[in-house]
Amino acid sequence: MDKQAMTDALVSAKAAKGLTWETMASDIGVSPVWLASACLGMNSSPADTAKKITDYLELGEDVAKALEAFPTKIWDQAVPTDPLIYRLYEVVGVYGETLKEVIQEKFGDGIMSAIDFSMEVDKVEDPKGDRVLLTLNGKFLPYKTW
Amino acid sequence: MDKQAMTDALVSAKAAKGLTWETMASDIGVSPVWLASACLGMNSSPADTAKKITDYLELGEDVAKALEAFPTKIWDQAVPTDPLIYRLYEVVGVYGETLKEVIQEKFGDGIMSAIDFSMEVDKVEDPKGDRVLLTLNGKFLPYKTW
Amino acid sequence: MDKQAMTDALVSAKAAKGLTWETMASDIGVSPVWLASACLGMNSSPADTAKKITDYLELGEDVAKALEAFPTKIWDQAVPTDPLIYRLYEVVGVYGETLKEVIQEKFGDGIMSAIDFSMEVDKVEDPKGDRVLLTLNGKFLPYKTW
Amino acid sequence: MDKQAMTDALVSAKAAKGLTWETMASDIGVSPVWLASACLGMNSSPADTAKKITDYLELGEDVAKALEAFPTKIWDQAVPTDPLIYRLYEVVGVYGETLKEVIQEKFGDGIMSAIDFSMEVDKVEDPKGDRVLLTLNGKFLPYKTW
Amino acid sequence: MDKQAMTDALVSAKAAKGLTWETMASDIGVSPVWLASACLGMNSSPADTAKKITDYLELGEDVAKALEAFPTKIWDQAVPTDPLIYRLYEVVGVYGETLKEVIQEKFGDGIMSAIDFSMEVDKVEDPKGDRVLLTLNGKFLPYKTW
Amino acid sequence: MDKQAMTDALVSAKAAKGLTWETMASDIGVSPVWLASACLGMNSSPADTAKKITDYLELGEDVAKALEAFPTKIWDQAVPTDPLIYRLYEVVGVYGETLKEVIQEKFGDGIMSAIDFSMEVDKVEDPKGDRVLLTLNGKFLPYKTW
Amino acid sequence: MDKQAMTDALVSAKAAKGLTWETMASDIGVSPVWLASACLGMNSSPADTAKKITDYLELGEDVAKALEAFPTKIWDQAVPTDPLIYRLYEVVGVYGETLKEVIQEKFGDGIMSAIDFSMEVDKVEDPKGDRVLLTLNGKFLPYKTW
Amino acid sequence: MDKQAMTDALVSAKAAKGLTWETMASDIGVSPVWLASACLGMNSSPADTAKKITDYLELGEDVAKALEAFPTKIWDQAVPTDPLIYRLYEVVGVYGETLKEVIQEKFGDGIMSAIDFSMEVDKVEDPKGDRVLLTLNGKFLPYKTW
Amino acid sequence: MDKQAMTDALVSAKAAKGLTWETMASDIGVSPVWLASACLGMNSSPADTAKKITDYLELGEDVAKALEAFPTKIWDQAVPTDPLIYRLYEVVGVYGETLKEVIQEKFGDGIMSAIDFSMEVDKVEDPKGDRVLLTLNGKFLPYKTW
Amino acid sequence: MDKQAMTDALVSAKAAKGLTWETMASDIGVSPVWLASACLGMNSSPADTAKKITDYLELGEDVAKALEAFPTKIWDQAVPTDPLIYRLYEVVGVYGETLKEVIQEKFGDGIMSAIDFSMEVDKVEDPKGDRVLLTLNGKFLPYKTW
Repeated sequence: MDKQAMTDALVSAKAAKGLTWETMASDIGVSPVWLASACLGMNSSPADTAKKITDYLELGEDVAKALEAFPTKIWDQAVPTDPLIYRLYEVVGVYGETLKEVIQEKFGDGIMSAIDFSMEVDKVEDPKGDRVLLTLNGKFLPYKTW
Repeated sequence: MDKQAMTDALVSAKAAKGLTWETMASDIGVSPVWLASACLGMNSSPADTAKKITDYLELGEDVAKALEAFPTKIWDQAVPTDPLIYRLYEVVGVYGETLKEVIQEKFGDGIMSAIDFSMEVDKVEDPKGDRVLLTLNGKFLPYKTW
Repeated sequence: MDKQAMTDALVSAKAAKGLTWETMASDIGVSPVWLASACLGMNSSPADTAKKITDYLELGEDVAKALEAFPTKIWDQAVPTDPLIYRLYEVVGVYGETLKEVIQEKFGDGIMSAIDFSMEVDKVEDPKGDRVLLTLNGKFLPYKTW
Repeated sequence: MDKQAMTDALVSAKAAKGLTWETMASDIGVSPVWLASACLGMNSSPADTAKKITDYLELGEDVAKALEAFPTKIWDQAVPTDPLIYRLYEVVGVYGETLKEVIQEKFGDGIMSAIDFSMEVDKVEDPKGDRVLLTLNGKFLPYKTW
Repeated sequence: MDKQAMTDALVSAKAAKGLTWETMASDIGVSPVWLASACLGMNSSPADTAKKITDYLELGEDVAKALEAFPTKIWDQAVPTDPLIYRLYEVVGVYGETLKEVIQEKFGDGIMSAIDFSMEVDKVEDPKGDRVLLTLNGKFLPYKTW
Repeated sequence: MDKQAMTDALVSAKAAKGLTWETMASDIGVSPVWLASACLGMNSSPADTAKKITDYLELGEDVAKALEAFPTKIWDQAVPTDPLIYRLYEVVGVYGETLKEVIQEKFGDGIMSAIDFSMEVDKVEDPKGDRVLLTLNGKFLPYKTW
Repeated sequence: MDKQAMTDALVSAKAAKGLTWETMASDIGVSPVWLASACLGMNSSPADTAKKITDYLELGEDVAKALEAFPTKIWDQAVPTDPLIYRLYEVVGVYGETLKEVIQEKFGDGIMSAIDFSMEVDKVEDPKGDRVLLTLNGKFLPYKTW
Repeated sequence: MDKQAMTDALVSAKAAKGLTWETMASDIGVSPVWLASACLGMNSSPADTAKKITDYLELGEDVAKALEAFPTKIWDQAVPTDPLIYRLYEVVGVYGETLKEVIQEKFGDGIMSAIDFSMEVDKVEDPKGDRVLLTLNGKFLPYKTW
Repeated sequence: MDKQAMTDALVSAKAAKGLTWETMASDIGVSPVWLASACLGMNSSPADTAKKITDYLELGEDVAKALEAFPTKIWDQAVPTDPLIYRLYEVVGVYGETLKEVIQEKFGDGIMSAIDFSMEVDKVEDPKGDRVLLTLNGKFLPYKTW
Repeated sequence: MDKQAMTDALVSAKAAKGLTWETMASDIGVSPVWLASACLGMNSSPADTAKKITDYLELGEDVAKALEAFPTKIWDQAVPTDPLIYRLYEVVGVYGETLKEVIQEKFGDGIMSAIDFSMEVDKVEDPKGDRVLLTLNGKFLPYKTW
């Protein structure tokens, strides 16, 4: 079973049970962002978590195996078109150099890892319009001299 | 005075005085990310803040006027090459659809604004290696039916 | 049922009944542009409107559910080739900076939202050749200082 | 004098006199959008209007001649990055096929001209946030059979 | 029946009857270039002409309906590779600015329409090698001031 | 003297004398399209014609030498943006396959040369709007079997 | 039968009979390069040669008809990735301007035709490593003045 | 002295002396194609040959040193536009897979080197039009198993 | 059997037997990197090795034949997106010119062959985090003068 | 002093003293690859090493400061053209998926860091042609579950 078939099975089972990523993640004991990324095929799952996810959704071992597989991370659009995703791309374009200035001032020459990395989404209620709070947490990796 | 000359003047004065964005921002009363973005020419500054910035760095009124000007936000690389900026682009590529799933589950059909938006950078000390904490805060904008 | 199958079902039913977007929209109580965009899969529909659309066209609940689904908005051609669509792209290319000048002079630094947004098409009869009147109506979003 | 030097001269004179496109256009008797596009070098001006513009700004005949010259309309970014201009590009991407459906239903097979064309920007005040009203008016051109 | 299936049906019937575009066009009373473009799906046909074409080739009403449908004109290669088509692209690249100079000198600021447009192909016999004569005939559209 | 400096010299002299390509071409005994293309640097001129052109415009031998030089034909925009040139590109996109069908039906497998090639621009007056007549004349080159 | 199915039939029959392009070409009386290009669908074959090829491989008349069809020459990769083909592309990149200098010095302003053209591949045995000898033979086409 | 300045010096001196690449190459004892490529900055020259070239053209030691420098081979156009160079690119596109078939049939799995490589240009006089003969000679490099 | 079907067969058999590339390569007597590249279809295998591989995995002669076939090496993403592969691309971007400096200083003007080439992957255990050791070994090919 | 001016100063001083990266690196106590990358502006130098480099080359403090500055790593060519650099790019294209298979089999799901990374170049003498040995050494970073 490849990642695409796995995602179809997981998303259908989730919809049939009327579940949200939030509820599933809380019951299984992981973060909703990580759970969604694993189910969409962009991260691999440890064996025990894969078993918990498929047991929870009453799916078979082939789906669990597919969750454990190491994905090849491919995206088709160098510049995304969906407005929600484009706005994130725009933030990187507008604030990329700014973040480089501010992060390297604080940490020295290096980068924020996208591998030793986690991310959360929160909702901040506001009478003038609710706000999305996105938190990225990545290990700082200093450049090496040799 | 165009934005490029303005940035040169601001960055030189900041370096000559041995200042950081952090110190400057704290003394002027704004966020370091916003301050850096305005000085790099990617945001316009209200007139009073522009005056504070230029007074602080002992620069002239032409620099203040340039800070107030509304910038045309242009970036040359559709896919950035600098590793610090690329990692952020990679996060958008790897987690874009995941964020769409999780945000729209929480808020309904719509997007996180990149205009009614702010961002902070924090340092979390950690014996296994310090971590970069990046917080994005954007108003949720629901799609409209008409 | 995915958006593509939904569009096929809606467009076939509309053609079989000899309807126009104009008539349908007027009977259902929405705008023709919004109605067409929802049926082509580029906007989601509120549940009650989705029910009205599918009842009107005598289609099933699966089509209604597909109309309610939040679409991922993707277009394949960064530069469109169809002449009708290209002319709109050309208008953005030729008049983009001009509109930035005129809008920001009137409203300050910010943008016209494409999310809190509506659009109408009208026909102006003219002996020298009828004219297309396209009206875009978007909320102004000012940039934020923080 | 080429178009770039012409634009620099016109924009500097306008700024020095503290004028807006709106005021200038109203005093000269043209539309602000057309006036800005001609001064930014994206449209040519009839000789008498060019004279009015340069007299109004107290600029010389070389600027008037440059306003009359037929421009080569070039834009560098196939996909614009400035958020105000990108949102217009996004509207073309999201609603391009929808507009094709609705316009051709009303007019038959053909296009809206971008040459026999005019455009206006209006401000609609609204307590929930002012709105930008953009009106495009183009002649319908039917395809020809031969 | 979509345009692709329509083209397959028309081209097969034409080949089975051993016809040329030239003969068909002459018998039906249209131009061979227009006829080929309609049969290849790049132009829509008036209802009566569509009926003539399908009667001539002994094809059904579904093909006629497909001929009447308004096509979305899409081409995949921004730079064509087939040598016959590339040479035309090369002519636009080499002579584009030249044609702008010569046409606008004769007609003023404006363009040659590609919508109110027709084209013919002729063969000029020549002992040193026959020549292709391509004639493009498009309405001049002057830019508008407003 | 390179081609760019040559073009500047030729175009300035032509403007100073108030000449058109049409008049110059007629007086010198060449076609206006060829003359413009040589003066814009996209074709080389035989030595005697180069002398006629520079004598006519009272320019020096360095300009004549530059006219004789074999140009490297480069254009920057794979997809042109100027509307007059884009419409020609659009004709190649919309009618490319059609022309391949019609030309190869008439001539066999091969192409229309863009080297052994000439082109003319004519004006057809018409009360409903004047028309541009563009005539391309290229030698047919059959593919070779070996 | 389209070109792809034709190529599959020809290549399978050739492999089943254990033939090389070299042997086939020599027996049929054409060049191996031309033969391979026709069988891969990049050139059309005269009717008698098509019959010889299909008789030789014991294939039917539908394959012969497909060999006679005029191909649309399309390649997908603007920059090829296969190392053998890339090296040829690299030669064009590294030596393109050099060849322009040397060819035009010898022949005047013009090009080497890729239509009135043939090509051979030879093997030169060499104790230090055999060498590939590639010979391109194209008619010189001078630019035309008109 | 960088390669660009070196090329300007060499080409000017060559033109001033009315020399051809052919004559120069013959007198110096190298191939005209190699000589032109070294003088255009796309190959480095051994020290003794560099001295011969600069002595021959009466140029200084700085030019010789620049000829010896190892060039970074860069070309700007992934798809060349100049017709002479494009035709070579077209040959790679049309015949790339054919050459792969024919070369690998003769030599086994591997490539023709573009480094251990030479090239010649010859003129074949022909009453029907002279022909360009281009000979590429590259070492065959077999793929390695390890 | 084409390369894609071959890879599917090989990878399934390997998974069913619970093998690693390392074990297989050691048992067959080749390098794991070469073995994986041949099984993924990016290198051809000598006949005897192909037999060993298919005997080892109990697969048929059609798979062996497919392993022997000379592959056309194609990759779809000019800039890879998978993070593991992108980091290698980044190394080429960041260190490309540096490697050119250091290699050519050591060897003279020339390149490292990617054809007469091998590569190994090793694991270096380290308490601060294990390290990947990648060794590339390619023949130096000097540029040729002719 | 920006990185470009710094590189010019360092490379000129190195050439004037007839030094190699190898000698310099050995005397200063760093690796030649790292030294070259820092001097070419693609890595920052610790302050003490920057002082050693500039003292060694008898350059001023401004060059040392520029060596310490954190570079923005930009490369212009998504696909490099210089043959030495292209071969490395080709290795990534041909062996990218293979390396992913072999590395992740050995280490689990994760990547080789390009930040906590070093690289060496060695020469292996060989009578059949010397060989370049390139060693990449990067920390393995496992993906994180959260």
